Amino acid sequence: MADSPDSAPDRRPGGRTARIRARVIEAVRAELGERGDEGLTMEGVATRAGVHRATVYRRWRDVGGLLVDAIDAAGEIDWRPPDTGSLRGDLTALNQEIRQTLAAQPSFARALMAASFRSEQAARAQTRLWTDRYTQCEVIVDRAVERGELPPHTDARRLLIAATAPLYHQMVLLRTDADPRLPEQSAAAAVLAATAGAFSARPDEGP
Amino acid sequence: MADSPDSAPDRRPGGRTARIRARVIEAVRAELGERGDEGLTMEGVATRAGVHRATVYRRWRDVGGLLVDAIDAAGEIDWRPPDTGSLRGDLTALNQEIRQTLAAQPSFARALMAASFRSEQAARAQTRLWTDRYTQCEVIVDRAVERGELPPHTDARRLLIAATAPLYHQMVLLRTDADPRLPEQSAAAAVLAATAGAFSARPDEGP
Repeated sequence: MADSPDSAPDRRPGGRTARIRARVIEAVRAELGERGDEGLTMEGVATRAGVHRATVYRRWRDVGGLLVDAIDAAGEIDWRPPDTGSLRGDLTALNQEIRQTLAAQPSFARALMAASFRSEQAARAQTRLWTDRYTQCEVIVDRAVERGELPPHTDARRLLIAATAPLYHQMVLLRTDADPRLPEQSAAAAVLAATAGAFSARPDEGP
Repeated sequence: MADSPDSAPDRRPGGRTARIRARVIEAVRAELGERGDEGLTMEGVATRAGVHRATVYRRWRDVGGLLVDAIDAAGEIDWRPPDTGSLRGDLTALNQEIRQTLAAQPSFARALMAASFRSEQAARAQTRLWTDRYTQCEVIVDRAVERGELPPHTDARRLLIAATAPLYHQMVLLRTDADPRLPEQSAAAAVLAATAGAFSARPDEGP
């Protein structure tokens, strides 16, 4: 994708290449939301973005390429984990964000998950995005340890997954309307478990 | 499906209708596992099952009908939740079963999840299956309350989801090889949270 004459130059933010990419990604998100990943086509995206089809084919090659770039673009957003002053508050706020994302109609997040079942390339991009987000969120646990809310050697990843997984489970796999109290309840349950040492990573257990 | 002359009679277990259904369902599972839900076709299933295509079309109508019946058939299996004598033991055993199901290559469970993103009909059948399974598992929590391991008024569903969701999250959404310790760790974390009252459903909060 970087070897064609017009894709290499001018990649700075706001440059022509960046503007085209932004329009195409926006079109991918809109098409995914409206038509689902099965309705995503190169032509539909080009038309919606107002970009020449030839450009879309040259730079993104196929629908898989579009999906991967849309996922990567989501990872480039300047997102910060919540910082409310308490572990329970942070995890609750995080869960509320997740709930909003999954409840959105149409939901881009849900469409990406569906796509990742059909495209190995999209699945890998999505795993990268998830991993990055959980890594970013580790600061929530670090701060809680510093404040003395949690024992040191708490396994941040396991705690974060325990706090957030029930929401995904209810909304994505069980497809039930998540109870509006679930973001706070799941956060509270994870805090209680963590305080009781459920996620302690003892040095002798390795990282 | 019940109005054609040859689908109504002889539905008893072991009857001709039941034998054909068993062969077709088995073929659906095998095809799903090998080809994924996108590779599932009426013709492929008929050939594999050694059943006339006309019969398959008449009784299951389309691929969605096959998927729904395969999901329903999974729900009819005489499954019992583990009964090890302790809450932690039961939840660990349950998680180990889930881990095996999801780690199987090919995984029928995973293929069904993928299908449920593409077919509303399959999604509804799957929600029914999940709901039934969680309802069956509530006995695990009831027994723990009787043994005095848990406070009364523990919300069984929330506890079960907290115990099992991290495993699905890791294996289905994050697509990481779940740590072999995860079944036990997640069970232990849920027990600690439950013991601390994280899933208490007080009478004034409604059911």
